[in-house]
Amino acid sequence: MRTNEIKFLVNWGDTDMAGIVYYPNYMKWFDIAGHHFFRSCDLSPSRLEQEEIILPILDVRCTFVKPLYYEDVITVRTRVNEINNKTIKLNHEVWRGEERTGFGYELRGWVKKEKQGIKAVPIPEKVRSILNHDVHTKSDITQPLFNA
Amino acid sequence: MRTNEIKFLVNWGDTDMAGIVYYPNYMKWFDIAGHHFFRSCDLSPSRLEQEEIILPILDVRCTFVKPLYYEDVITVRTRVNEINNKTIKLNHEVWRGEERTGFGYELRGWVKKEKQGIKAVPIPEKVRSILNHDVHTKSDITQPLFNA
Amino acid sequence: MRTNEIKFLVNWGDTDMAGIVYYPNYMKWFDIAGHHFFRSCDLSPSRLEQEEIILPILDVRCTFVKPLYYEDVITVRTRVNEINNKTIKLNHEVWRGEERTGFGYELRGWVKKEKQGIKAVPIPEKVRSILNHDVHTKSDITQPLFNA
Amino acid sequence: MRTNEIKFLVNWGDTDMAGIVYYPNYMKWFDIAGHHFFRSCDLSPSRLEQEEIILPILDVRCTFVKPLYYEDVITVRTRVNEINNKTIKLNHEVWRGEERTGFGYELRGWVKKEKQGIKAVPIPEKVRSILNHDVHTKSDITQPLFNA
Repeated sequence: MRTNEIKFLVNWGDTDMAGIVYYPNYMKWFDIAGHHFFRSCDLSPSRLEQEEIILPILDVRCTFVKPLYYEDVITVRTRVNEINNKTIKLNHEVWRGEERTGFGYELRGWVKKEKQGIKAVPIPEKVRSILNHDVHTKSDITQPLFNA
Repeated sequence: MRTNEIKFLVNWGDTDMAGIVYYPNYMKWFDIAGHHFFRSCDLSPSRLEQEEIILPILDVRCTFVKPLYYEDVITVRTRVNEINNKTIKLNHEVWRGEERTGFGYELRGWVKKEKQGIKAVPIPEKVRSILNHDVHTKSDITQPLFNA
Repeated sequence: MRTNEIKFLVNWGDTDMAGIVYYPNYMKWFDIAGHHFFRSCDLSPSRLEQEEIILPILDVRCTFVKPLYYEDVITVRTRVNEINNKTIKLNHEVWRGEERTGFGYELRGWVKKEKQGIKAVPIPEKVRSILNHDVHTKSDITQPLFNA
Repeated sequence: MRTNEIKFLVNWGDTDMAGIVYYPNYMKWFDIAGHHFFRSCDLSPSRLEQEEIILPILDVRCTFVKPLYYEDVITVRTRVNEINNKTIKLNHEVWRGEERTGFGYELRGWVKKEKQGIKAVPIPEKVRSILNHDVHTKSDITQPLFNA
């Protein structure tokens, strides 16, 4: 299955008065890491929009293992966990060096915008094959474009 | 089991370019609703701090059912779902009128700050009884103090 | 000149590792207070949209006087400071009880969406008169509709 | 005067329902850019803490010139604008390619934590000389350490 990874720095504004990362920031990182993942295989929102496809979030979960601190450098490792008929599950793991500080997933639908509204549709074979591909990439967090 | 509810308004800054709520905001609402829940039964962080107790997040999950829009008025209903030996699970449901737009939970530890570090400890009987109590309250989102 | 006020509670997630409010939250409060102000006189974005009018931010400033802490109850007092030909300046003051903790302004344009793009246009006399009106209202932070 | 620059990517969550960046994010970028600036000359909060010095925000302003969109790559250019007796003013400019989309400043105090409380103190000559130095650096947004 395809994977991608991306680095973040924990910023001052990510912390709370307990001196550690405020937990909803993990979901922000998951969302950003997911966008970079989809960019890494040419399935970014900007690209999918051309075919009227959106990937709405259906479910998210995160398990917290260790607190994160200001100026920690973290790597979010994203990999395809499930390719279902009309949904994709991405696993995200957050690492600080050799230590996994949290992990979870995002489940997203494969949804077509139609005149009558939006509708989940089967994921095309071409996309399944891209996601299934055993390729491992790294994204630069400041780059929208990805050149493998 | 004890419950509490609280109202929010969806603000402009809660939306994203899809015109709907950006999903990590659900976790911000869960966190705020949880704080109001704990305040509602005199177990707020400020109160627990006096006994060196903190309630770190261990696990969070959210399932998204319907999109939320700017100026939607939502009610977050929080109830105790599990009182384990050293953890508490709060369920949160987000309602727009009669429609449930999302739901999930926060699992938090009952943790004592000690000289040697922090350590999960059994939840005292007194606290179990407060959480078990079949009381249903409503919080005012602008009020830190709760007078039942 | 018209004024409006609104209450907030400082949430856990508004703080940073210094134990005080992370300053960009002031701009979030300014923006929310501004939206409530415009709602209070029937000039909300949802209402103006019917006439293809938007109010883009042009300039914002905030001076910080005192730190804010978790569970502080604050009141944001908003008043019209200037009604220029094509811009409106709202002043915002943040009060904790009798103490002003910060103050600043938002300058917004009066802009029409046209086929060829967007264009600043003169503020209609009717709107000038609404803003000039010496009325003082209070908004409920959980209410999108305002009934004076 | 010393300058530093840093790149950001506009993320999905930075946008609002108007399809452009929600303006309080500019202040988040200013804050992050400021932290990188201070790191770039060995004056980061972690470093200053050893001498009980903090740099509280006193005033912030931002003028908005052009809207920013999802996946825009921006560069924030930070330079010392004023070194006063007890305050430092950093100017920040946000550029998308050759286009300046916004600009402003942060005014921060040079404040010592003492037993009796905090107190603004004169900026040491050594620090003035570091800030005055005509050095131009670039930070990597994922790196807390800076090696000139």
